Amino acid sequence: MATKYTTPHEVTAYECDVNGTMKLATMIAVAIQVSEEQSNQLNRGADFVQQFGLTWIVTNYQLFMQRLPKAGETVYVTTQAQEYNKYFCYRHFWITTQAGEELVRIETIFALMNVETRKMSSVPNEIIAPYESEKITKIKRYPKIEKVKNGTSLPFRVRFYDIDGNQHVNNSIYFNWMMDVLGYDFLTKHVPAYMNIRFDKEVEYGNEIDSHYEIIQAETLQTRHEIRIGEQTYCEALIEWQEKK
Amino acid sequence: MATKYTTPHEVTAYECDVNGTMKLATMIAVAIQVSEEQSNQLNRGADFVQQFGLTWIVTNYQLFMQRLPKAGETVYVTTQAQEYNKYFCYRHFWITTQAGEELVRIETIFALMNVETRKMSSVPNEIIAPYESEKITKIKRYPKIEKVKNGTSLPFRVRFYDIDGNQHVNNSIYFNWMMDVLGYDFLTKHVPAYMNIRFDKEVEYGNEIDSHYEIIQAETLQTRHEIRIGEQTYCEALIEWQEKK
Repeated sequence: MATKYTTPHEVTAYECDVNGTMKLATMIAVAIQVSEEQSNQLNRGADFVQQFGLTWIVTNYQLFMQRLPKAGETVYVTTQAQEYNKYFCYRHFWITTQAGEELVRIETIFALMNVETRKMSSVPNEIIAPYESEKITKIKRYPKIEKVKNGTSLPFRVRFYDIDGNQHVNNSIYFNWMMDVLGYDFLTKHVPAYMNIRFDKEVEYGNEIDSHYEIIQAETLQTRHEIRIGEQTYCEALIEWQEKK
Repeated sequence: MATKYTTPHEVTAYECDVNGTMKLATMIAVAIQVSEEQSNQLNRGADFVQQFGLTWIVTNYQLFMQRLPKAGETVYVTTQAQEYNKYFCYRHFWITTQAGEELVRIETIFALMNVETRKMSSVPNEIIAPYESEKITKIKRYPKIEKVKNGTSLPFRVRFYDIDGNQHVNNSIYFNWMMDVLGYDFLTKHVPAYMNIRFDKEVEYGNEIDSHYEIIQAETLQTRHEIRIGEQTYCEALIEWQEKK
């Protein structure tokens, strides 16, 4: 059974939006922080991984949201490296209440990238062993994300504070770019229940991206998203929404 | 002697910029959070203040920065309501290391605003008494901020995630708008040592602001900043910089 790591997190007002619930961007940043804490505890922190000329990237997230954490609430963030194959590591996160109720489950696909070549690397046993996750041969894929067909878009310039210590645009920033375009009325009348997001290419400081979106009334209310520079897609997502109660 | 309140804060990677030190915006958000915690502890939280039809605003900040908190470091954030007069409350914050070394001192001027009329209100004794700060008659002013004379600017659209639970653009966002325009090279080669910022008017969701700035090589390296919409100034600041070691 793979090692689990749990840490409490007090949700502050500044981590929340006008609805008083946690910004998805912050939730993702906190989750990644917790996985870094686990890695440090297992002596597999960024420095260790860097000895191999590698760095972790996250290529996909699926979020299953029962309820978003609220300002003032203390939640527990648990992470576990579930399985891995030659190139991909499958890690889960759970955000739960003090009473153990699951609020959000986040499934992620991590990969290792060569810092110099920016190419994916196979996963060295020395890096992965301490997590005690199961080795599998299967490649797991999340559901395919449909393209934005009749979308509109808004431009976003990559800002200095969007880039993190690794000189990359932090993953969490893409969540803000995608959701902001939906506007105040939409974002105060709906809550996200499911999100599937896939990172294809790295956006860099100095880029200006277009955040394309399309609202689809299917069985559920859905929004489809693409972060593009010109015709090139850098990141794509599907979000399923519920009416806010 | 006015009541002091201290809380530890673990500086996470996502609170830091590419330099590995805490974003000023986050430092301000954390400070405000700590003052809210003190208010809650004294039963003078937002709900209590709202009974008077009022809400707190911060009109001025002065930051004295010896060294910015680093990712992974645990710092202590202390706050104390120092003095107040009819309209203004003077509150200090100190960010210190575990060993008690002062990293940052933040001086602030708070005022109470009527939620309906958006006008300033005098400070009711019922609200201020528990902080045990000293009543003074003098109005304290921070140094005058010189205008931007030969500046350049970049536009910023107010985004959904820039507004907080009070429907305002969070104060911390202005810090990002002001500093982002200085660019990667400047912001990775210099560290702020002093900042004096004054909030004149509220920017609202849907606005597009221009972040004007000018670099002045005086006795110290200074940058002057103005957030404007058209000819109207909403916020102004002076920052003094040192070469990054």
